[in-house]
Amino acid sequence: MTAVYSSKVDLQAREKALKILYEKFREVLKSIMDGNPPKLVIKKRTLSNTVYDPEKKLLLLGDATFERSFLDLREARKFMQTLLMASIIYESLTNGEYPTIRDLYYRGKHTIRYRKLPSKAIGEENTWEEQSESDSVIRDIEVFTNVLREEMLILSKEKGKVVGELKIRSGDDVIDLSKMGHGAYAIEPTPDLIEFVDVNAEFVLVIEKDAVFQQLHRIGFWKKYRAILVTSAGQPDRATRRFVRRLNEELKLPVYVISDSDPYGYYIYSVFKTGSITLSYESERLATPQARFLGVMMTDIFGSDKLRKKPYLTEEERKNFIIKAKERDIKRAKELREYPWFKSDRWQLEIDEFLTRKVKLEIEALAGKGLKFLSDRYIPEKIEVGDWIV
Amino acid sequence: MTAVYSSKVDLQAREKALKILYEKFREVLKSIMDGNPPKLVIKKRTLSNTVYDPEKKLLLLGDATFERSFLDLREARKFMQTLLMASIIYESLTNGEYPTIRDLYYRGKHTIRYRKLPSKAIGEENTWEEQSESDSVIRDIEVFTNVLREEMLILSKEKGKVVGELKIRSGDDVIDLSKMGHGAYAIEPTPDLIEFVDVNAEFVLVIEKDAVFQQLHRIGFWKKYRAILVTSAGQPDRATRRFVRRLNEELKLPVYVISDSDPYGYYIYSVFKTGSITLSYESERLATPQARFLGVMMTDIFGSDKLRKKPYLTEEERKNFIIKAKERDIKRAKELREYPWFKSDRWQLEIDEFLTRKVKLEIEALAGKGLKFLSDRYIPEKIEVGDWIV
Repeated sequence: MTAVYSSKVDLQAREKALKILYEKFREVLKSIMDGNPPKLVIKKRTLSNTVYDPEKKLLLLGDATFERSFLDLREARKFMQTLLMASIIYESLTNGEYPTIRDLYYRGKHTIRYRKLPSKAIGEENTWEEQSESDSVIRDIEVFTNVLREEMLILSKEKGKVVGELKIRSGDDVIDLSKMGHGAYAIEPTPDLIEFVDVNAEFVLVIEKDAVFQQLHRIGFWKKYRAILVTSAGQPDRATRRFVRRLNEELKLPVYVISDSDPYGYYIYSVFKTGSITLSYESERLATPQARFLGVMMTDIFGSDKLRKKPYLTEEERKNFIIKAKERDIKRAKELREYPWFKSDRWQLEIDEFLTRKVKLEIEALAGKGLKFLSDRYIPEKIEVGDWIV
Repeated sequence: MTAVYSSKVDLQAREKALKILYEKFREVLKSIMDGNPPKLVIKKRTLSNTVYDPEKKLLLLGDATFERSFLDLREARKFMQTLLMASIIYESLTNGEYPTIRDLYYRGKHTIRYRKLPSKAIGEENTWEEQSESDSVIRDIEVFTNVLREEMLILSKEKGKVVGELKIRSGDDVIDLSKMGHGAYAIEPTPDLIEFVDVNAEFVLVIEKDAVFQQLHRIGFWKKYRAILVTSAGQPDRATRRFVRRLNEELKLPVYVISDSDPYGYYIYSVFKTGSITLSYESERLATPQARFLGVMMTDIFGSDKLRKKPYLTEEERKNFIIKAKERDIKRAKELREYPWFKSDRWQLEIDEFLTRKVKLEIEALAGKGLKFLSDRYIPEKIEVGDWIV
């Protein structure tokens, strides 16, 4: 069935991934055949080996490695799991499958029976109990082979959407993202397989909230300002991040991010820009170091003497729109304040303002002030005068 | 801006909604001018006035009404809120806005100052404190005017996606849903404004889980079986439900729903089919009484002597795939068992089987058994032999 109905792009991607997996694991096999103990050398994915690179402006994996050895009792189980998962992925690539990490977990889950020594009694051990175990070895395989899961045709749920002045080729189709009517184009889980065919946009606007994306889309924001409009619908998933990165890197389009004005909103921006702590080994491909935080800023709400900036909200609007920060917001802001990638003066000013005022603001409050205020004043004005943080 | 960039369809929808709102509230005004006390007569949205209609197979609002009177002290606040919200919606329609329920909350939120009697001291009262208050009057306005929020161009976030053998007109564009590449079409929040242009499909398959939707899409399921593939990405939102209903009602396509085999999955199916308890006033337009539950059924997992049905899973697969039900699953199943729309013999058999076995199964487990098993055997076979519950 796959041979007939899968796209050519997928068939090529399969061949490529199969080749790399084959070569990487053949080396392991060769080493064993040469009489060496079975082992894998993999970069450590620990927090201590996650480094913020101020030059590249990315969270990256450091150079520390560890050995996963079959003959080490503590590592034998993990070694087995890694090879089992690699073989399942290899097989699924061969068979034209499109697994998810959840069904890879199911595919590999079974009980191994063995004879205990010296008693020779029958022992039983499950390959893995929880998905966290199988997910962990998938990450190891990504790091070990330098092939991302998407390149191995492993799919996932996908929330990201896009509309705007862009034509893409996906699978066997060419899709005009300016012809989506009132709906939008749901980004595929494998955005590296997208080809950019034609672009007529001047910038990319990423909106954290789907409902606000719908509003700006419907009012024609991207037509008027020749933009590409993207929503991550909350915390961005891998595909949305990779898609945004490619728009920035390959099409040379500036990327502006808009989120709620609170530590969770700021962090969503930083995931786009710098990468996430748990997936630092992928920042180099998923993060967009040039992404600009357009708002909502604390200084948009209250203005700033230091920046000679006037507030966008009146006293009365602030009274009605702002929300008192919760204890966990304060706690989160204090954590953010210490992250190296928030250490710039500009960010410290925003975070300090948050910690002083102890209030937050949703992006919907600006739409509540008038959708035209948001689309025809707030956004274009801030872009024009350069009121963003990078 | 709106006049230039909004679609013709939206402009027409605005005019229509404005006309109805104007007429409905003019009646209220006229009655007041005639010397009657200011009041609104609205159908009750209480649980006791939510009735399951076994003929229509829908959860509907009964005929009981209540009066919201300005001169009743308990109702004066609600009366004011309802008229305030109606005027904000009316104004936003006039101004070419696309509000969300969240920003309608912000738009209306302010403090009213008044003189207390007899002391003549200044009193203050907020129009509303929480969004639950403003949401509640939006529902009242929908029921009172018989105009759904979507018809008033109130937007919302939207999770539903679709691909398949269907061409639609949305806004000013014609979109071929069989030309979405590896991505999908994200359904608009106002699906009543969609026009079906051309259909070449034989059935609709609704997949609860986005990741499984991605898999079936990518393997070409809808091409091979000439289907329209929809995902609700979890609990279905209003737009996805309305879209599915229209596919069934207007295109006469059978609708099959696939979810996890647990009470939450069964309930998701029943929301598609019967409506939800809180939105019963909209069932008549949002629910699809003919929707068929294709699986995953308890009897798919274990077979059934009574139905002379063989299980789809082997003993060994059951051991690896099934998950022990939690206390809250059991509790939920017992509630489901008592809902009138689950009272058929066939559903009682499934629910009893669940309560006896106390286990559940995710749809991903079937994909784990092989995506081709899911797409080329399980789904087509069950459709062919008619193994669904209606």
